[in-house]
Amino acid sequence: MRLAELSARSGVSTATIKYYLREGLLHPGRRVTATQADYDEGHLRRLRLVRALIQVGRIPVNSAREVLAALQDERLDRNQRLGTATWALPHGPEPDETDPATEAARRTADELMDRLGWCCGSTSGRTPAAPAHGMLVTAIAALSRLGYPCAAEDLEPYARAAERIAVSDLDLVERYGTPDEQVEAAVALTVLYEPVLLSLRRLAEAEESHRRFGGE
Amino acid sequence: MRLAELSARSGVSTATIKYYLREGLLHPGRRVTATQADYDEGHLRRLRLVRALIQVGRIPVNSAREVLAALQDERLDRNQRLGTATWALPHGPEPDETDPATEAARRTADELMDRLGWCCGSTSGRTPAAPAHGMLVTAIAALSRLGYPCAAEDLEPYARAAERIAVSDLDLVERYGTPDEQVEAAVALTVLYEPVLLSLRRLAEAEESHRRFGGE
Repeated sequence: MRLAELSARSGVSTATIKYYLREGLLHPGRRVTATQADYDEGHLRRLRLVRALIQVGRIPVNSAREVLAALQDERLDRNQRLGTATWALPHGPEPDETDPATEAARRTADELMDRLGWCCGSTSGRTPAAPAHGMLVTAIAALSRLGYPCAAEDLEPYARAAERIAVSDLDLVERYGTPDEQVEAAVALTVLYEPVLLSLRRLAEAEESHRRFGGE
Repeated sequence: MRLAELSARSGVSTATIKYYLREGLLHPGRRVTATQADYDEGHLRRLRLVRALIQVGRIPVNSAREVLAALQDERLDRNQRLGTATWALPHGPEPDETDPATEAARRTADELMDRLGWCCGSTSGRTPAAPAHGMLVTAIAALSRLGYPCAAEDLEPYARAAERIAVSDLDLVERYGTPDEQVEAAVALTVLYEPVLLSLRRLAEAEESHRRFGGE
């Protein structure tokens, strides 16, 4: 398809598509004349993913480019491509190593990983620490600095819920046919389901609060 | 205690405490001389909550002020204060009512609430629609616009996980002794546990991906 059709089918303006092409967020089309190129379903899919990252996830262009590069790395298998792409997603402020709360938070996070039998994110596991592990350490340190509950046993029910969520996530991913489509969907769904999850938690809290404290 | 002690015990500088007092984020101390005031444990607790909202949750000062006002409203019971305070938290962009995807997303959200038997956030329920319901509609509309799975049955497992999370949330809240402490903790934990949950989900996804696709 030509640029105009790619724009119509994706709902992204031709100016924005040209910007994504210049920024390397979208791979070039197959050149057919000096001024025209041909685009395929792969471009359409990639465009959806770029919009998910940039417009919905508000991920900076540089980070989005890293995520997309990881997805395309032919040397990696599906699990590695998924890991590398997810690791390139923004994950908030790094743990503050000058703060004593951070060291304690790292011990708590490691204890939690041990309890769960998780090893992908562990600092002592078979892979380098996932950035999401740093994100967890930062969050635990903030809780502990402010004196809110954050022991490994307080966090465990949240991790158990996260395990169930990850099963649903990968079930959605496996609906897609090819490994390429699967890794693209996995990254998009990681980002797009974050507000779903946070809004459902707030609604569920309102239900649970009503159940416990309603009609006082 | 005096301002200097409040600063030492909270880890918040006296300049920042004075700023919070001016902005109405912290209630005035009991005046003891023309230039000195006395602060109590309630001030210390409130200061923790303000830091949770502003420094960790990156919530704008105006929204934080609204949240705090709701917590103090004596006319409301515990469930209502909690609801009002959580509703004042920022909840992302409003649904775009000019977009046809929004209307369909609202129907999906309503269908999901029906399946779950939730009514606090429902547009047809006994209370006005919670802002988290709008946040959910916005998130579903984005998924649908980009062609990713977002039917009520796709979302239900996430809602079931959210129900379990809300039980853990309220269990943590009920560790606090007084209703005042409970509503303060509920708001702080809603905000502070968001990065905990999102990071645990990413780590759980890495585990689940390794389990399904590892060693290809």
